[in-house]
Amino acid sequence: MSQASFFPQDIIIKKRDGGALTKEEIEFFARGVASGQFADYQASALLMAIFWRGMTPQETAWLTDAMMRSGEVIDLTDIPGAKVDKHSTGGVGDKVSLILAPLAAACGLKVPMMSGRGLGHTGGTLDKLEAIPGFRVMLTVPEFRAILAKVGAAMIGQTPQVVPTDRKLYSLRDVTGTVECIPLICASIMSKKLAEGIDSLVLDIKFGKGAFMKTKERAIELARAMVAIGAVSGKPVRALLTSMSQPLGRAAGHTTEVIESIECLKGRGPVDLMEVTYALTGHMLILGGIAKDEAEARRKMKSAIADGSALSKFREMCIAQGGDPRVVDDYTILPTAKKLLAVRAPADAKGFVSEVDALKCGHAIMALGGGRAAVTDKVDHAVGIADLIKIGEPVAPGTLLCTLHVNDDAKGARAEELIRAAIKVVPTAPQPEALIQDLIQ
Amino acid sequence: MSQASFFPQDIIIKKRDGGALTKEEIEFFARGVASGQFADYQASALLMAIFWRGMTPQETAWLTDAMMRSGEVIDLTDIPGAKVDKHSTGGVGDKVSLILAPLAAACGLKVPMMSGRGLGHTGGTLDKLEAIPGFRVMLTVPEFRAILAKVGAAMIGQTPQVVPTDRKLYSLRDVTGTVECIPLICASIMSKKLAEGIDSLVLDIKFGKGAFMKTKERAIELARAMVAIGAVSGKPVRALLTSMSQPLGRAAGHTTEVIESIECLKGRGPVDLMEVTYALTGHMLILGGIAKDEAEARRKMKSAIADGSALSKFREMCIAQGGDPRVVDDYTILPTAKKLLAVRAPADAKGFVSEVDALKCGHAIMALGGGRAAVTDKVDHAVGIADLIKIGEPVAPGTLLCTLHVNDDAKGARAEELIRAAIKVVPTAPQPEALIQDLIQ
Repeated sequence: MSQASFFPQDIIIKKRDGGALTKEEIEFFARGVASGQFADYQASALLMAIFWRGMTPQETAWLTDAMMRSGEVIDLTDIPGAKVDKHSTGGVGDKVSLILAPLAAACGLKVPMMSGRGLGHTGGTLDKLEAIPGFRVMLTVPEFRAILAKVGAAMIGQTPQVVPTDRKLYSLRDVTGTVECIPLICASIMSKKLAEGIDSLVLDIKFGKGAFMKTKERAIELARAMVAIGAVSGKPVRALLTSMSQPLGRAAGHTTEVIESIECLKGRGPVDLMEVTYALTGHMLILGGIAKDEAEARRKMKSAIADGSALSKFREMCIAQGGDPRVVDDYTILPTAKKLLAVRAPADAKGFVSEVDALKCGHAIMALGGGRAAVTDKVDHAVGIADLIKIGEPVAPGTLLCTLHVNDDAKGARAEELIRAAIKVVPTAPQPEALIQDLIQ
Repeated sequence: MSQASFFPQDIIIKKRDGGALTKEEIEFFARGVASGQFADYQASALLMAIFWRGMTPQETAWLTDAMMRSGEVIDLTDIPGAKVDKHSTGGVGDKVSLILAPLAAACGLKVPMMSGRGLGHTGGTLDKLEAIPGFRVMLTVPEFRAILAKVGAAMIGQTPQVVPTDRKLYSLRDVTGTVECIPLICASIMSKKLAEGIDSLVLDIKFGKGAFMKTKERAIELARAMVAIGAVSGKPVRALLTSMSQPLGRAAGHTTEVIESIECLKGRGPVDLMEVTYALTGHMLILGGIAKDEAEARRKMKSAIADGSALSKFREMCIAQGGDPRVVDDYTILPTAKKLLAVRAPADAKGFVSEVDALKCGHAIMALGGGRAAVTDKVDHAVGIADLIKIGEPVAPGTLLCTLHVNDDAKGARAEELIRAAIKVVPTAPQPEALIQDLIQ
């Protein structure tokens, strides 16, 4: 045996007792998880020990690297232009990727984006794209490269060849209570992003009720850890901390979010959604050398929206990935729900919205059948939320709180209950909270 | 489903976050480990979380009870007399069980003893008994009961029907770095002892270099936890804390320890070994109502040695369990090594023994082939250590440090090296250390 060999239990005990693992030990773990030399029950014990004791930035970087090299690492150096991607830790109503990818491509970047599916109360980019008839997200690497070179943006699912160790570890973490662990989250995200062949990366780290990170402190910790791994890997990483106190934009679901995304590309997007999209895309343009600062980036993006070039990129991407491009002009070709249910404020309502609980909104989507409780569940693309009221807006009797797209009356009633519980009204307008709270780089 | 149902990950997360598990959650775990509802990788994550967060005395008692009830619980109430057992956490040269069981039976107790095999540097009672030609340790429960009723002592291995969950959990702990965890050790030992049908129990908690517990503090912690479980279960438990700074007695191995044990029963045992044996057996006699105090217990035990009744019990037990009873008078029927290797002090030696490292002596036994690195290894019963020098004894050039029983010259040379490294000599006699340091009850 030419490679270093260890007993898994010695590595577990070292971490259990608070020690830092060596590069060789971490590589043995990452290899062993795939080969079976590190049994599942040993991997889960080590994951719990890591949850307990943490990992140093150096250990996290080694783990990221070992995971990345567990599968195919895509080399995009022969495609001209800066390859910059964005990753979000996920939230309710977060359709930024659908706007950002064509917008950044229209400004001259190459955006090689591998995304995931929705699980629990948060949606997934792949599911949203699949609401578009014919849109194929499971492409081969050669297809991915060809579309990236031609269109400038390609949005696909993770291929089985990329970071197989992450799939294995993630499925173990999911059932062993070891998900919310910063070094493991870091290595999981960064190994996949580095395997995509990117030059640099912008992160959207969300925090708040509807987000994975419940507090700003934990979000900052995660952001710092990811920026540090980027530095070790020679790939500049910038992270924006954004508040997820309410859903982003006014739509949540699949068809409803695709419509809202196209509206954004047409220059008619909600303020909060555009603010986050511009901020994230702006930092991508800076990292990619397209803009020297945020002001210049902002000018270029606004012009790409105004002159229709961002919308054109979306259409091009649809065509390249097999989707029906008429969607841009005709939303009726998207899956459509049987019924629209207007949820209105009651007769005694008076005041201003102080809270739109993103977690409850996510649960409403699930109640409608538009979410996934288990990875094998099918989602109903047609159902969802539109016209959602935002924090700070006035409420009077009969004010529209949202429109539910419903395929089943009983499910609609349950979703309405959840939406009503999600929205709080107070007598005076609340202080607005900054949506983008920090930049870590 | 009539029984409470949980998701394993919810139980793991609760413990991970420092919560106390309920009786129902612990029972779900103990049942689920056997049935597969709690997958191995989930069990090991929970074991690591328990290692991290600990368990309350109540949780430990519930776990002990749930594990005990995972298999057959032997009922010995129809056998007259007090059923009292002893358990030792194990050490090098610890052959106390072989002396204590017949001695206690000779004094009128019933001793239902289930023991284990050796692993690593510590020996196992079952392996030592098997050095006696024909001696059967794997008896059925009816055989065990019959011998106990007739002879007063039976020494057997754990039957597969008793505490199956412990076997499962122990094998997982062994390979996931979760062995040295007091609540888990407690539940493992106590579930097996309670399943034997005992009325009360004496524990020998060893600490020091050659022992499982390295410090007296940890040993006290373990002793208190076990006494507490006994109290909850209505079975009085007393624990003696004994120092394992050097091997117990002058012999280590299998044949060598059987010989030393029989010598003890003949009244010719080494002082330290007899001191520990008398202390442990004495507390058994008190718990069993045979003696009112240590002084009376001591008189009864000395008389059972002096009049040969303890030795007779050993002979009876041999016969009942299929062993050749001639061993009592003729040690040559035991497996005999090819060669005796006298290890002597070098020409410049001068002073007193200050240390006989029990761990290194254990490794010397393993080097000779008399130990087990893996549970499936066969042990060579013939090899071992005899005539071992003790702390405080004088050393001059040529003083015998020990006699090695050797079957292979190269292994003998390696063992000699280890023995020489184990023994330290200082110019003045060291202060003697008390062998029995505490009684927890």
